[in-house]
Amino acid sequence: MTMPVIFINCFEVPAGREDDFVAFWSEVNRYMRGKPGFVYNRLHRATTPDARFRFINYVQWNTEEHWRAAHDDGFRALLQKPHWRDFPPSTGAIFDIVCEFGEEAKAA
Amino acid sequence: MTMPVIFINCFEVPAGREDDFVAFWSEVNRYMRGKPGFVYNRLHRATTPDARFRFINYVQWNTEEHWRAAHDDGFRALLQKPHWRDFPPSTGAIFDIVCEFGEEAKAA
Repeated sequence: MTMPVIFINCFEVPAGREDDFVAFWSEVNRYMRGKPGFVYNRLHRATTPDARFRFINYVQWNTEEHWRAAHDDGFRALLQKPHWRDFPPSTGAIFDIVCEFGEEAKAA
Repeated sequence: MTMPVIFINCFEVPAGREDDFVAFWSEVNRYMRGKPGFVYNRLHRATTPDARFRFINYVQWNTEEHWRAAHDDGFRALLQKPHWRDFPPSTGAIFDIVCEFGEEAKAA
């Protein structure tokens, strides 16, 4: 079995715009999770007050090609909505796991 | 049951110093995983050529207090080793999970 690839995206969200960001992200996420090859995702919100990235999204895709193909015209149209254009760019990239230690605790 | 907190740390590693970074990170990781409250971690390496962060570390700690207490004199001494002082600062912060969708695929 081939392991999915991991896409990690870090967002610098201006103070006071956290709820806007979650609304935006939720809209994009609903779109992406309907695409072929989408496996799993988890959105993290910083509790550290001075964190550089307020939100980090962690996503599994079956292959890098699936991830690339999902960034289609429909996706680009979502990003062009006027209220999203002024968000700073994010850092999204594809990753492999190079080291793992211990056993992850999962929510019940 | 209280869920562990998540610590995510993104590293801007200069090109050509990836192996140095992994050696450094492994030394710090060996130290940290012996500390009370350490649960789990996973180190990611970017496969995207122009990724801003070459490495991202994803760690679970039982509580934020455990995580804070682990950054003790022994930890600081590791960071002061001469070959590590010139690495750019990383972005480490504590996060909650605010949204999760799908089922994560795990390595066999």
